[in-house]
Amino acid sequence: MMVELRDLGEREVVRRIVESVGPTSGIGPGDDAAAVPLGDQYLVVSTDLISGAGHMPEGMTHREMGWMVAAVNYSDIAAMGAEPLGLVMALALPPETELSALEGMMRGAEECSSWVGGGVLGGDTKESPHPVLTGTAVGLVDREGILLRSGAREGDLLAVTGYLGRAAAGMRALEADLDFPEGREALLTPRPRVREGRLLSAHGATSCMDVSDGLSSSVHQLSAASGVGFQVDWESLPVDRRVIEVIGECGASLEESVLHYGGDYQLLFTLPPSKRGEMEEALGDSISIIGRAGGSENLLRRGGEIFKMENRGYEHFG
Amino acid sequence: MMVELRDLGEREVVRRIVESVGPTSGIGPGDDAAAVPLGDQYLVVSTDLISGAGHMPEGMTHREMGWMVAAVNYSDIAAMGAEPLGLVMALALPPETELSALEGMMRGAEECSSWVGGGVLGGDTKESPHPVLTGTAVGLVDREGILLRSGAREGDLLAVTGYLGRAAAGMRALEADLDFPEGREALLTPRPRVREGRLLSAHGATSCMDVSDGLSSSVHQLSAASGVGFQVDWESLPVDRRVIEVIGECGASLEESVLHYGGDYQLLFTLPPSKRGEMEEALGDSISIIGRAGGSENLLRRGGEIFKMENRGYEHFG
Repeated sequence: MMVELRDLGEREVVRRIVESVGPTSGIGPGDDAAAVPLGDQYLVVSTDLISGAGHMPEGMTHREMGWMVAAVNYSDIAAMGAEPLGLVMALALPPETELSALEGMMRGAEECSSWVGGGVLGGDTKESPHPVLTGTAVGLVDREGILLRSGAREGDLLAVTGYLGRAAAGMRALEADLDFPEGREALLTPRPRVREGRLLSAHGATSCMDVSDGLSSSVHQLSAASGVGFQVDWESLPVDRRVIEVIGECGASLEESVLHYGGDYQLLFTLPPSKRGEMEEALGDSISIIGRAGGSENLLRRGGEIFKMENRGYEHFG
Repeated sequence: MMVELRDLGEREVVRRIVESVGPTSGIGPGDDAAAVPLGDQYLVVSTDLISGAGHMPEGMTHREMGWMVAAVNYSDIAAMGAEPLGLVMALALPPETELSALEGMMRGAEECSSWVGGGVLGGDTKESPHPVLTGTAVGLVDREGILLRSGAREGDLLAVTGYLGRAAAGMRALEADLDFPEGREALLTPRPRVREGRLLSAHGATSCMDVSDGLSSSVHQLSAASGVGFQVDWESLPVDRRVIEVIGECGASLEESVLHYGGDYQLLFTLPPSKRGEMEEALGDSISIIGRAGGSENLLRRGGEIFKMENRGYEHFG
């Protein structure tokens, strides 16, 4: 039987790619980035692309495209607890692309790189009927400090950096022509949580990944990799007032936006309860405890009731 | 005035990208790969893509596509004298792509990686109307062993690994439905000269790059980076008998095929005459001395006469 990629969905396709990779000397396939041992450190490598068809909302500027392709990769580096070294860019562009567009993309990638303390190391370009921008970021992390998806243990607290639902609200606002600059920023120029990833690594986080696929999907992925279920408390999810307003004004579902939409480049992580004080001291208000690891199912607690947590989220080839 | 990429050509576009990158802590922009200092070594990073439109001759198998995208990147790692650590792949594919096609691509990339002593470390995939396969290879080289385009000096010998014109003859044979397996291999599953690059670095090569853009273009690029001209002896160019036959049978120009066509993933390098013996002992028959550095112009000596060497070669957005 002929199987096409759209029959499988992105995550299953990536799983097959990773399987086909076979045993390597490194760890990482299955995590946000690949990792290769290098002395007493790991070299962490992330590659990700955005395609002109599907990933770019109308009105997205070239600078935003460049920032975005850098950010999605630095976010994967952040999720491993690593310090970024830099980024290379491979740009497949139509021949009629204006030079100023290319310059805008490079400027965006450079600005995002500077923001995380990395740099654009180099780039290549070839022609293609549709634009496909691929970034590859490299970083370093101490052997014992690497954060994987597989480290969560029964009893660990589940936590997240920053706010959830902002990218979803940003998309709704863009579609409805509402002014919501924080939403546009979350959606189009997300700030990779590199500083937070480094601090999580230094202060005893047991597992980590980014929530770009959406919270529910990420919780299920963390659960599958760690072999433990999670209970997420709806009331603890960090959703700011303006997001609730925008979602309301646009007539969209808050649950859908916060749990399933994706696009927030925050980190989802676990920590032993004994590390909570130290972690909150190091990271302050920038993290929220949203649940706990235990049992084998992924549950959502809301208004005193407990539901099974749906496993949905943004997926290509869907 | 609006400038489009097709007005500039690939090399000028890449030059602009590299310029826009600005000063980094690393070296490399302008070379085959970027390089970042890492202790007493350089981390070398190459990214390159092949696009479904333009880079893939009809009848190219999925395994060959995967091999190719790996090979073009390992060739850049080889040109810097580095030892490959591995490769990540970012695949933009139409949703109707068959899973077996993806598996074939990954198998090809894995085979090429094994051949050079690297490995596929990970990969990602997203949907796109046209296939764009991007690979990024990483490698390591000792600080003092790195090979750059800028190191050639007056009096150095100019040399090349392997044979020239095989990829061009392979393309002609493919178009004419002639049987020429070595040509098909040179064109579609080129063997990156990683072993040779390591030996060149160890035995005193002064500059290096790959000749994938074509010999004449590569000579001009090496010349511009090093600030010295080259005189190339036509009679010394390593062209095997079968290539001459195939080119002749297809009614194509031998000069065009050997000097300008490109697609041969061999290394072009320079060495001081004092290192010739040592280099030939280490690399044996796999290298040919084809000329010498001197003056400011790039010249071709043929049949006792001296011509200016044209600066042509394969270029995207051309």
